[in-house]
Amino acid sequence: MNAARPRRRSTRTLVDVAERLTHVDDSGAARMVDVSGKDVTVRRAVAAGTVTTTAEVIALLRRDALPKGDALGVARVAGIMGAKRTPDLIPLCHPIALHGVQVELTPRETSIDIEVAVKTADRTGVEMEALTAVAAAGLALIDMVKAVDPAAGLDRVRVLRKEGGKTGLWERPS
Amino acid sequence: MNAARPRRRSTRTLVDVAERLTHVDDSGAARMVDVSGKDVTVRRAVAAGTVTTTAEVIALLRRDALPKGDALGVARVAGIMGAKRTPDLIPLCHPIALHGVQVELTPRETSIDIEVAVKTADRTGVEMEALTAVAAAGLALIDMVKAVDPAAGLDRVRVLRKEGGKTGLWERPS
Amino acid sequence: MNAARPRRRSTRTLVDVAERLTHVDDSGAARMVDVSGKDVTVRRAVAAGTVTTTAEVIALLRRDALPKGDALGVARVAGIMGAKRTPDLIPLCHPIALHGVQVELTPRETSIDIEVAVKTADRTGVEMEALTAVAAAGLALIDMVKAVDPAAGLDRVRVLRKEGGKTGLWERPS
Amino acid sequence: MNAARPRRRSTRTLVDVAERLTHVDDSGAARMVDVSGKDVTVRRAVAAGTVTTTAEVIALLRRDALPKGDALGVARVAGIMGAKRTPDLIPLCHPIALHGVQVELTPRETSIDIEVAVKTADRTGVEMEALTAVAAAGLALIDMVKAVDPAAGLDRVRVLRKEGGKTGLWERPS
Amino acid sequence: MNAARPRRRSTRTLVDVAERLTHVDDSGAARMVDVSGKDVTVRRAVAAGTVTTTAEVIALLRRDALPKGDALGVARVAGIMGAKRTPDLIPLCHPIALHGVQVELTPRETSIDIEVAVKTADRTGVEMEALTAVAAAGLALIDMVKAVDPAAGLDRVRVLRKEGGKTGLWERPS
Amino acid sequence: MNAARPRRRSTRTLVDVAERLTHVDDSGAARMVDVSGKDVTVRRAVAAGTVTTTAEVIALLRRDALPKGDALGVARVAGIMGAKRTPDLIPLCHPIALHGVQVELTPRETSIDIEVAVKTADRTGVEMEALTAVAAAGLALIDMVKAVDPAAGLDRVRVLRKEGGKTGLWERPS
Repeated sequence: MNAARPRRRSTRTLVDVAERLTHVDDSGAARMVDVSGKDVTVRRAVAAGTVTTTAEVIALLRRDALPKGDALGVARVAGIMGAKRTPDLIPLCHPIALHGVQVELTPRETSIDIEVAVKTADRTGVEMEALTAVAAAGLALIDMVKAVDPAAGLDRVRVLRKEGGKTGLWERPS
Repeated sequence: MNAARPRRRSTRTLVDVAERLTHVDDSGAARMVDVSGKDVTVRRAVAAGTVTTTAEVIALLRRDALPKGDALGVARVAGIMGAKRTPDLIPLCHPIALHGVQVELTPRETSIDIEVAVKTADRTGVEMEALTAVAAAGLALIDMVKAVDPAAGLDRVRVLRKEGGKTGLWERPS
Repeated sequence: MNAARPRRRSTRTLVDVAERLTHVDDSGAARMVDVSGKDVTVRRAVAAGTVTTTAEVIALLRRDALPKGDALGVARVAGIMGAKRTPDLIPLCHPIALHGVQVELTPRETSIDIEVAVKTADRTGVEMEALTAVAAAGLALIDMVKAVDPAAGLDRVRVLRKEGGKTGLWERPS
Repeated sequence: MNAARPRRRSTRTLVDVAERLTHVDDSGAARMVDVSGKDVTVRRAVAAGTVTTTAEVIALLRRDALPKGDALGVARVAGIMGAKRTPDLIPLCHPIALHGVQVELTPRETSIDIEVAVKTADRTGVEMEALTAVAAAGLALIDMVKAVDPAAGLDRVRVLRKEGGKTGLWERPS
Repeated sequence: MNAARPRRRSTRTLVDVAERLTHVDDSGAARMVDVSGKDVTVRRAVAAGTVTTTAEVIALLRRDALPKGDALGVARVAGIMGAKRTPDLIPLCHPIALHGVQVELTPRETSIDIEVAVKTADRTGVEMEALTAVAAAGLALIDMVKAVDPAAGLDRVRVLRKEGGKTGLWERPS
Repeated sequence: MNAARPRRRSTRTLVDVAERLTHVDDSGAARMVDVSGKDVTVRRAVAAGTVTTTAEVIALLRRDALPKGDALGVARVAGIMGAKRTPDLIPLCHPIALHGVQVELTPRETSIDIEVAVKTADRTGVEMEALTAVAAAGLALIDMVKAVDPAAGLDRVRVLRKEGGKTGLWERPS
């Protein structure tokens, strides 16, 4: 999707919006926000994260010699299925259809980079689906390597860019 | 539990173990490792993570003025339920009983610290349950604040300590 | 939605309809009724229920001193997530998108009133989603208070009003 | 199980217990209470509820002429599966094994009585499983009849008796 | 749906298509294929299968005298609910709405035939939903009869016909 | 487990057992049979099945050139996760722990053989878990190949052997 130049909104403005939004209900009670008013548009989100481990583990991974087997294959499936489980895991997420999910895993020297792209055409964005897929893939990797590296961790789970909807393109500031 | 001094094993040894473990099946095929041989012992794991956001968001959070409502309460429940969904999310995890789950959320100046303790008495550890709870709580927090901070992220998801089972106590090296 | 005066249909007519509907299949076998022919319209349902307990429990609740913690917050999340799990729980329910879910909990002298509003734009109504949310919130409340009131119960789970679809507005006769 | 005469504890005492229980954590934060200390004993719970509808609906039900088919059969399965979904629905419930679930549905003149017995051998009781089964069966019945009786409701969802565990037998006061 | 004469494509052509499809990503990594480009059309799939058992079991089934009760009723519900669980079970399946599901079970002399029709209006077909429903109904039947016939099996799970979408009608070659 | 010679029971005897079993409840209502009386023993089940397709598909599979990617890896994970979802899919199955699950996939000339071994220590056998894993792996394979072979099917889903429990070893008669 070619989306002109990203539109940015200062956090300040967003906070004002929040004040207004919540004004209708001061109770601060959790709610699944009504999105009936929003348009159905093509929406896309890309999120990323990194599993940090050791050089020995990466070596085992490359030789496919980890105790639980094919770590990258399992993590990829965990990510795709995780995207589908998002409304089950994130209490206030809207259940929505997904048109496509792609999980990329790139082993580095002592880490594995995770990047997930999710696409749909609906009333809400798919950032949470992309983030949940990153987390699920990352946790699955940790589960595959923890017998050999109990200190493995998941870092920098974040949205890189989102497209579609009223706010249009948002790109992570470098 | 009186836990003497932590027993540490070098990653090197663990790698040798992995070689042996996988020797029985060179195919590298994913499998749910058989734990029949392991003892049922009390097992406990503590994991942590941090949601990074902005001072404005923390201010809204403290005033309970976020668009989707009570962020800490929702994230706590997401963490506890996430721990229970672990075998659904992590493909090779064993389905096990959980005896207790505690989620602690501590707002800082521009971040929220997450710490989860999980306890059981079973044949496998509960690190993955604790890590999944941290991830679910963190993602729920991001979902609650993303309307006001689209750049919010989840960092340093990791195990702090685990107890029980053959390997006994493991503590994260500082 | 301003919907003129509610259209009412006598149960009698509804029974005739049922006879016709089932005529196509006399076997009485359970089926997920085909809704392809129905229009996608905005649909809204409001359901309610009441958890009956004791004055002591309400006092503990107000002081947030219940054994399992924040009962109202947990029940609200249980209700919202319950609405999303409806097709998993109610065998013949259609899986549909939800645009918004709001759960209101009102503690009385010896009871807690539950009211849930659910909204969507789809081919079937959302009464079952609203009722399931009421039941899930009510059961969660009972779980939070049962250690101090094993006799707590859930009463009068019912639809108050529904809007949208061919039958338009339906309001519960007083 | 030989269940002598029920042991009763006044709500007052229970409230004192609650005060003590929560004293360890004043934050009032939701938690899955640690049951490691509890014994594994045979536990049984019986819960009940009633779906209120019309004489016409009961007539259709008896003739197996409801639009969605075999209402009693579907509701029975919904109840049994609902018991298994309890930890997914009730945020702070412990995931536990179930040894047996029995759902009894008794059509009356203008209502259907639901009674569910659940049995296990674990560290926590199964009241919530029995109550969830009653709610799921009741909601499934409402779903089967709502096309012909939009006013159908679920009433008096409650525990009738529980056995096992430290508190032993509890019977609902008449 | 009256759909002219079925359009057939040789497996050969389909293989060429596959080559092209995968050319965009040679890595062979699992992905949920992006269907954004596909049209929303009414789609229908019919799948079938057969549970093979013994004449004694069929006799018990007809007398409704199986240890676990009403086998056909339970299997029908299992099939309908199984169709809804498809995206949870089949890793790369898209989560989609379902408009209707019908499960037909026909006891023969020493077997039970299963036929499932699924309908929707979406961007992808519903063959997997129909096949999953057949498998779930078949497995449920095996579960109901295995105490009296541990050798019961499920055979010939297959798609009979599919309609809708770009490829239009496909019918199983006799 | 070294299990002497298999103990066989004629179907006839089993039918008598069924008569007695159901005598306690003539209603024929579905129920989750109470297994409290059964012993916790190590139980193991092996089930198998076959996906029938074309030589072209097997060629694509071996070249890892299928439209949706790594078919064997995805099917293996689907099988393992399917085993864990058994109580969600099979209405009357008891929710039980699993100690290990192994899925073997063997491509033949025009088919793929599936064999799954499941192990636990509980009060009920794990045949249904093994069969569900076979079905899930088989359906996942069909999903991966259906774009190039819409006629692919799943055949001969059956238990090969079960061990443990009162009935001891059962082996499929050749």
